[in-house]
Amino acid sequence: MAATESLTAERILEATEEVLRRYGPAKATVVDVARVLGVSHGSVYRHFRTKAALREAVTERWLRRTIDALRPYVTATEPADERLTGWLTALFALKREKAGGDPELMATFQVLIGENSAVVDRHEEHLVEQIAEILADGRRAGLFATPEPELPATARAVFHATDRFHNPAHAADWSQPGVDAAFTAVVDLVLRALRRA
Amino acid sequence: MAATESLTAERILEATEEVLRRYGPAKATVVDVARVLGVSHGSVYRHFRTKAALREAVTERWLRRTIDALRPYVTATEPADERLTGWLTALFALKREKAGGDPELMATFQVLIGENSAVVDRHEEHLVEQIAEILADGRRAGLFATPEPELPATARAVFHATDRFHNPAHAADWSQPGVDAAFTAVVDLVLRALRRA
Repeated sequence: MAATESLTAERILEATEEVLRRYGPAKATVVDVARVLGVSHGSVYRHFRTKAALREAVTERWLRRTIDALRPYVTATEPADERLTGWLTALFALKREKAGGDPELMATFQVLIGENSAVVDRHEEHLVEQIAEILADGRRAGLFATPEPELPATARAVFHATDRFHNPAHAADWSQPGVDAAFTAVVDLVLRALRRA
Repeated sequence: MAATESLTAERILEATEEVLRRYGPAKATVVDVARVLGVSHGSVYRHFRTKAALREAVTERWLRRTIDALRPYVTATEPADERLTGWLTALFALKREKAGGDPELMATFQVLIGENSAVVDRHEEHLVEQIAEILADGRRAGLFATPEPELPATARAVFHATDRFHNPAHAADWSQPGVDAAFTAVVDLVLRALRRA
């Protein structure tokens, strides 16, 4: 298949995700990844020095997709309260889609996430930073009341208060009746807390 | 041991919890419960017609302890915002204590909770009603702004927004550093949302 010359980290990660999807996290090996790419496993190791490093990188890539998908809500020009609602709604929709649409891949990544807690911590930091950026915009526009020094802690509180609607530990509840109304009620509560009186 | 005459439902439930603690939810039987009480298993069945009914009742009793422990925060005379903070703090402390202090019994009841979702739903309703009572008091005292018809939905939103600090799905996070600050930040956010401007 492809020659080693054109072997990029991105292509390896794509193939790794494919292999994980096919064989599951317990059975997937670097040799499987190399076979999918038509290269030697040595070529894969030149990009990722260990199997653990490869699994960490593929986890990071999977999580980064969420960050990238949410970025537009951070950079858009709509009022900050609308963008925060949009951001939270999009995060819930993405997680739900992952959990409902491809439960096997989701289960696979739950295993990888358990192995790579530092990657997950960084991912959560990114998400909280995105919320903080929206809150800072809202503050500058006179929409939100949170004082500047409290922005990071408040952003984290917003992330935690909506945990039920993005933490995969709750995935089983996401198909229950009433979950959308429950989500809207929590978002309303959060916005009420943030808005300038 | 005890005579059948003095055999009450409460004594059977006490013994059942003891047996569950000793043998685990997979192995505990009605015969074990009868043996602990020194009665025939027929005597136990006179109070609880099936093993499932017994397990449901013991789950209900276990959950009721939380309701009873939180009741003082509903009936006390302190300002409603203080009582809500107290209620949420006590709930978190109780759940944490159960998870950390007796993880085996907690695991046992997680199994029973999975078997008795209707009991758990009723329990959650009770908890949400307690929050709603505190919110209604706060409204009457001019402390909280939530309009009367929105009290039940808002109480549920408060319960959901603090999910991270009472839902056993998050028990592993409760011993992490920073969890108390995170809890306080979410409670502050919730109170800001509720308070009259």
